[in-house]
Amino acid sequence: MAKKFNRAMYFLDQKDMPTHWYNIQADLPEPLPPTLNPMTKQPATPEFMHALFPMECILQEVNTADRYIEIPDEVLEIYRTWRPTVLHRAYRLEKALDTPAKIFYKYEGTNQAGSHKPNTAVAQAYYNKQEGIKRIATETGAGQWGSALAFAGALFDIEIKVYMVRISYDQKPYRRIAMEVWGANCVPSPSPDTKTGRDMLAKWPDCPGSLGLAISEAVEDAVSREDTHYSLGSVVNHVLLHQTIIGEETRKQMEMADAYPDIIVGCIGGGSNFAGQFLPWVPDKLSGKKKDLRIICVEPESCPTVTKGLYAFDYGDAVGLGPIVKMYTLGHGFIPPPIHAGGLRYHGMAPIICHLHRLGLVEAQAVPQTKVFDAGMLFARTEGIISAPEPCHDLRVAIDEALKCREEGKSKTILIAHSGHGHFDLAAYEKYLSGELVDYAYPEEEVRKAQAELPQVSL
Amino acid sequence: MAKKFNRAMYFLDQKDMPTHWYNIQADLPEPLPPTLNPMTKQPATPEFMHALFPMECILQEVNTADRYIEIPDEVLEIYRTWRPTVLHRAYRLEKALDTPAKIFYKYEGTNQAGSHKPNTAVAQAYYNKQEGIKRIATETGAGQWGSALAFAGALFDIEIKVYMVRISYDQKPYRRIAMEVWGANCVPSPSPDTKTGRDMLAKWPDCPGSLGLAISEAVEDAVSREDTHYSLGSVVNHVLLHQTIIGEETRKQMEMADAYPDIIVGCIGGGSNFAGQFLPWVPDKLSGKKKDLRIICVEPESCPTVTKGLYAFDYGDAVGLGPIVKMYTLGHGFIPPPIHAGGLRYHGMAPIICHLHRLGLVEAQAVPQTKVFDAGMLFARTEGIISAPEPCHDLRVAIDEALKCREEGKSKTILIAHSGHGHFDLAAYEKYLSGELVDYAYPEEEVRKAQAELPQVSL
Repeated sequence: MAKKFNRAMYFLDQKDMPTHWYNIQADLPEPLPPTLNPMTKQPATPEFMHALFPMECILQEVNTADRYIEIPDEVLEIYRTWRPTVLHRAYRLEKALDTPAKIFYKYEGTNQAGSHKPNTAVAQAYYNKQEGIKRIATETGAGQWGSALAFAGALFDIEIKVYMVRISYDQKPYRRIAMEVWGANCVPSPSPDTKTGRDMLAKWPDCPGSLGLAISEAVEDAVSREDTHYSLGSVVNHVLLHQTIIGEETRKQMEMADAYPDIIVGCIGGGSNFAGQFLPWVPDKLSGKKKDLRIICVEPESCPTVTKGLYAFDYGDAVGLGPIVKMYTLGHGFIPPPIHAGGLRYHGMAPIICHLHRLGLVEAQAVPQTKVFDAGMLFARTEGIISAPEPCHDLRVAIDEALKCREEGKSKTILIAHSGHGHFDLAAYEKYLSGELVDYAYPEEEVRKAQAELPQVSL
Repeated sequence: MAKKFNRAMYFLDQKDMPTHWYNIQADLPEPLPPTLNPMTKQPATPEFMHALFPMECILQEVNTADRYIEIPDEVLEIYRTWRPTVLHRAYRLEKALDTPAKIFYKYEGTNQAGSHKPNTAVAQAYYNKQEGIKRIATETGAGQWGSALAFAGALFDIEIKVYMVRISYDQKPYRRIAMEVWGANCVPSPSPDTKTGRDMLAKWPDCPGSLGLAISEAVEDAVSREDTHYSLGSVVNHVLLHQTIIGEETRKQMEMADAYPDIIVGCIGGGSNFAGQFLPWVPDKLSGKKKDLRIICVEPESCPTVTKGLYAFDYGDAVGLGPIVKMYTLGHGFIPPPIHAGGLRYHGMAPIICHLHRLGLVEAQAVPQTKVFDAGMLFARTEGIISAPEPCHDLRVAIDEALKCREEGKSKTILIAHSGHGHFDLAAYEKYLSGELVDYAYPEEEVRKAQAELPQVSL
């Protein structure tokens, strides 16, 4: 009786929602290099890490035994307030491109905080709660991560202290207010609340702040109080693990759509959103089930960590207080140009992604900001969604690949890992519309200088 | 194998999505009073209305014969980019209230424009496109309606001109930029683009504008150009009709949840969102299937149209250019206090809702702004969603009813019609958090004056 139609959204019932995260470490052909203590430059002990993170996260960080790790019931219960998220088929974009390609996107923008970040924020808040932690300190740049942790803190009744880079704090009041609505305490960094902050303010009262400085403040806060931990929103293994719920759901939804991707594309800043999507597909590449699956990591041309970085041991934070990991890096002292995709302005990259790139399992492309927004505009005017600047990077490469399909007369299936909406990024769109958006050249000289300051490690 | 769990989200598969809107006019025990031409004060002819609206909408406006009106395939195709929307069970809110009540909410905030408005914007754009209309003019206050029509215009390649009340234009640049991203031309009203606007600017160059003035500009624009129509985002019958997709979906989803509402609650400004939810439930009240179903319309204490208005013929717009309808009204010249729920600052109310209230089928309550935001805050810290100020009105009454259930030890099922997110309303939350949010007394004297200016109608 119902008319024939093209299904544009694939819902997964909550009874079919994955109950486990996928742990790629159990499947790696070669193990990851160890994480190092920044003081000793030797492998970090769990005790060292435990000053910052709950033990469960530390165990997940180094777990090479279990392919699947059970998601705690309490976390699943909260996931079910917004998950499973929808897999969309982008018919209108396909039509506008006149391409034979089939384009799908898994969209993480419909949850309370508007991005993929709550997938790990909720898990981390839960594990901290289990250990009796009453307070978590963190940093945030553009505010997506701070928002997600503030939201998670509200759900578990954990006090959240967010050190927000001052220039963002001043420019993006809505992100700050959202954190306050969820009950978090958000201060501009540098702040008078830490020695690091006070020292900086004494030297430079109008200091605009930086992510590195904000990390330092949050770490200082966390190690100085018994009741407080520190929390990270990307890069490290356990964060990527928590994000794999995205890909696990998508695999089921692509099956519902009777489709399998030829190309999976996503942006990488610290790497957690895209890894959350693509990691569960890697076994099919390893087993030969889909050897030619292309996994394309997209980064900004002005901050091309994987395409132009060194593969080396470097600090995860900008000032050398945090753990040292082996990754592609532009040098921890490198300050990327002020592109609008704040989430992609990072000198390093998730060690898991770097390792997979070394093994030839993923590839990387760098794209310039104006072409990224061209893609975001086309997406907004076809699919309707105003995307954050970060996922506009995915859209750029997905569109390019779809256009190649048109040229070659080939129908490929493209899957986009869309991390969230751009409701708080409209100032960037305004710059685009008024013709003021610019591209930044790759600052090669500055990168060279920063890379000269890598820590000396002999393992 | 799957563990037992409480399902918190009910998805409806696209194959089960309703294919028809529900037309309450076919079921009304008494017909609606006619719409009048503002010049003649006699029933408006289709020809008069056709200068403003497409014929299909005009026919829907007066259709008393068909209970169900088929949704065009082209509209369904676009609905499927975000519909069916999710029905949520608010377990965390229930727990915080320690109530035996079951609370459900149908949430319209996940679509591209973030509110229920696209349900009619897309339909209206489609019908206009069918008539060869190339351009639509409209007004917007806070910007939700303008955003939705801009989005719909992008999908049908129709030029959209939005006259945005100047004070909102200046205060809410993000809404304006969103409209521009979708390709609309948004100007502050009063504007130099119409005679109405130019006259006002000559008299008062810094005029902050008003919704009434913006309507006048949009209507003048539409009637002065062959290729242009005018479009309304609420109040009139065909707009309410298009919104019934919400309730039609919810009926199926409540069945999936094995639940039936005792109370349905929603805010009313022009009335379209809430009517979209509750109208499809009215037949169960009429037939006696659920005679005691309570349908509670919530309005601001400072703009209490249904609870304190006169039931009379009045202009829909503020300056007396638009059609005259019979409704509860505070007087078309009444300017409501500056509460943050801009969508509820309207002197009149959808004639269908007023008619049902007269027939005793729906009830109304008025609530003060600070208590509305108390409810919005509790919702944000339990369910996580930051709601627009308008649906916070629903939340206030839903919470009050749930607390009554606790006192009385009764378990009732409460269904909330949640119209959208508050991502562009965070300035209002900031006022709340800083203790600056105030309540406004009902301006009785001003209402009396405005009501003295009702048009003289003898029918």
